Amino acid sequence: MRIYDIIAKKRDGFELTDGEIAFFVRGYTNGEIKDSQAAALLMAVYLNGMTDRETVCLTNEMAHSGDMLDLSAVGSVTADKHSTGGVGDKTTLVVAPVVASLGVKVAKMSGRGLGHTGGTVDKLESIEGFRTELSGEEFIEQVKKTGVCVVGQSGLLAPADKKLYALRDETATVGCIPLIASSIMSKKLAAGAECIVLDVKTGSGAFMKTARDAQELSRKMVDIGKKCQRKVAALITDMNTPLGNNIGNSLEVIEAVEVLNGKGPQDLREVCVALAANIVSLSLNIPLEKAEEKVALALSDGSAFLKLCEMVRLQGGNVSQLENTDLLPKAKFCRRVLSPSDGFVSFTDAEKIGSSSVILGAGRKTKEDKIDHAAGIILKKKTGDKVQKGEVLAELFSNNESLFDESEKLLLSAYEFSSAEPKKTPLIYETVR
Amino acid sequence: MRIYDIIAKKRDGFELTDGEIAFFVRGYTNGEIKDSQAAALLMAVYLNGMTDRETVCLTNEMAHSGDMLDLSAVGSVTADKHSTGGVGDKTTLVVAPVVASLGVKVAKMSGRGLGHTGGTVDKLESIEGFRTELSGEEFIEQVKKTGVCVVGQSGLLAPADKKLYALRDETATVGCIPLIASSIMSKKLAAGAECIVLDVKTGSGAFMKTARDAQELSRKMVDIGKKCQRKVAALITDMNTPLGNNIGNSLEVIEAVEVLNGKGPQDLREVCVALAANIVSLSLNIPLEKAEEKVALALSDGSAFLKLCEMVRLQGGNVSQLENTDLLPKAKFCRRVLSPSDGFVSFTDAEKIGSSSVILGAGRKTKEDKIDHAAGIILKKKTGDKVQKGEVLAELFSNNESLFDESEKLLLSAYEFSSAEPKKTPLIYETVR
Repeated sequence: MRIYDIIAKKRDGFELTDGEIAFFVRGYTNGEIKDSQAAALLMAVYLNGMTDRETVCLTNEMAHSGDMLDLSAVGSVTADKHSTGGVGDKTTLVVAPVVASLGVKVAKMSGRGLGHTGGTVDKLESIEGFRTELSGEEFIEQVKKTGVCVVGQSGLLAPADKKLYALRDETATVGCIPLIASSIMSKKLAAGAECIVLDVKTGSGAFMKTARDAQELSRKMVDIGKKCQRKVAALITDMNTPLGNNIGNSLEVIEAVEVLNGKGPQDLREVCVALAANIVSLSLNIPLEKAEEKVALALSDGSAFLKLCEMVRLQGGNVSQLENTDLLPKAKFCRRVLSPSDGFVSFTDAEKIGSSSVILGAGRKTKEDKIDHAAGIILKKKTGDKVQKGEVLAELFSNNESLFDESEKLLLSAYEFSSAEPKKTPLIYETVR
Repeated sequence: MRIYDIIAKKRDGFELTDGEIAFFVRGYTNGEIKDSQAAALLMAVYLNGMTDRETVCLTNEMAHSGDMLDLSAVGSVTADKHSTGGVGDKTTLVVAPVVASLGVKVAKMSGRGLGHTGGTVDKLESIEGFRTELSGEEFIEQVKKTGVCVVGQSGLLAPADKKLYALRDETATVGCIPLIASSIMSKKLAAGAECIVLDVKTGSGAFMKTARDAQELSRKMVDIGKKCQRKVAALITDMNTPLGNNIGNSLEVIEAVEVLNGKGPQDLREVCVALAANIVSLSLNIPLEKAEEKVALALSDGSAFLKLCEMVRLQGGNVSQLENTDLLPKAKFCRRVLSPSDGFVSFTDAEKIGSSSVILGAGRKTKEDKIDHAAGIILKKKTGDKVQKGEVLAELFSNNESLFDESEKLLLSAYEFSSAEPKKTPLIYETVR
């Protein structure tokens, strides 16, 4: 078998065999196949596509290129959740403890923020002492004990995906649905959970700008999961405006705690309930409505919040900061951004809002950047809200006052106004199961 | 400007600007752009194509990436000829001296054989003492003096093309007409001749398997040449069967000398006359029919043969080997390949015949291989010929007897037979000017 022939076959629009895909993934991971050859093949895949069978095979090969976590020691049904990335997306902080409080084990590896979106690991590190790096034994032990553990991603999961993703990133072949689906699902399969619920964001702040692309990606990922004997669902949710009002690490922990205490913004609460209910329904084999009731109860009776506190305590975090969120890191400086117009907020570019937050110090421009856990934005007006000229659109927080001007300028450019009330877009477009 | 955006633009089917193409060619040549990025762009070009404007721009950028030969010192009209490569193609050995004998200067750089096709430089090196490496001054001096010089290719011509070609070769992006056209024409433009005549081969032994592809390639190359102020024509000629009867280095010199002495096989003679007449017509601005007459006269009155002898003498070659071709290298061993069937030769796979000759030692399997100048094949039967079982199809020549079995087997697999006389295909399909 020669990589040249495999490239030529895909270039000419033919379907690759499982053997050819395995040859490519293994050869590229072990360095026998050159970057140039892999790049040519990726561009041919980008332009000629992959069938569902090819996509499943690619996913499996990438998943098996490193460790496949064995969660059987947990002794009960395990669940995982993945978001394709958005602004203000703190759902894991809510969903993981909720479903754990209902008996579904969550052994979750989360990412750090890069670009305009945040990462769960960075958010949890707002909490004093919280450890996101545990050994494999500690990780499993905690899940057995308390049902939930959230740590950073290990380098040994799907190394083929890691290498291919870096190549896609420099060759303009990232935005290809079969490649995105297999990249995400290879990591989820390797992470070992039986039940996987995906939150596929769509809109101005999401990678999938259109609902149609989000739908195709969702369908592909659910198909892969099922063919690999996992219980899987994908929710397509709106990211035309940030989720909830708070953006930035400690600010998002605060908002998650509000939801876990039965409060918090309606949109965030609704998405969290839908995600958690799907996990509970699939994992425990109960109807979705029943699962929704259980989730709502866990949020209102405080059991979900207690579960978060338990997890944070076991991972070395200062639980008093959750009991009184005023104790979480606070920024020295605040600036209010005022509306330049009367009328309605007709559109927000969520990606620009995310980037405004990064400028304030809440995220990284490069992998090496340090994060200001207190930095971020509280939105006072979102798409659809009525607003008067001079009213506060948003509050900016940072420990570095000199960053406000640039951030404010970008934030204002993210807002559009209209005299008529804009049409409402759905918060949850569809559930693919 | 970023290469990422240029890749994405071509990936999405848009036309690149001259500035973007220049950025790519310069950046890749000087090592700033990675192989992986260039490979992704090449695959996007392969699948999405290039407009004529883009192709001309790419050609010019590659031509100007190294030396641009200045032939003005020659003091008269200069011509060049290029063949896209075939089996038994010894036309340069005939055409160069013919046109030089008619007053058109030929300062020609030729290639060596690789794969199933031979190279003019290897053929000339069959002649004892013949030097194919001359300094730039010697080269120009000889052209001024005798009107014709044929040497090996210098490494300083179109280095961007050299680097990109190597990348295309490993990423399955060679067979793309705009890329082939720009690769050939960049070298021709850099080589400095005012008049360029292209021999575009089509058929089983050619790179362009169909006449339609050959036509598209011809049209593109002629278009590029004209836009770059050269006089240019392309002849589409048949390569479903080798040109002439002899394949292999000294065997081809012998056949070329026959044509220069007014003899030789009809097909070889016809293609040589057409190529030479087009060069003479374009270079001297005379009608094609007039040019054909002049060429025929130069072949029959011996002036073209004398010109070859003059060139060979000036380049250090033993002219007595041309005057008596029995003195050229001769193989120790010969094997006759007999027809397994009665009827007509209905098809020959010229590529396989070329490869049979390479097996005998006439060509290189890798760039480092040594050539046996005496090795090769004399075809006794070609497509359309009547044949009886047991009649000689071909004679194989080699200095290594152990190579005959493999070569014979491949040669026989190249022949197909039929009971009915096959339809004749044209020798020259079309002239694009």
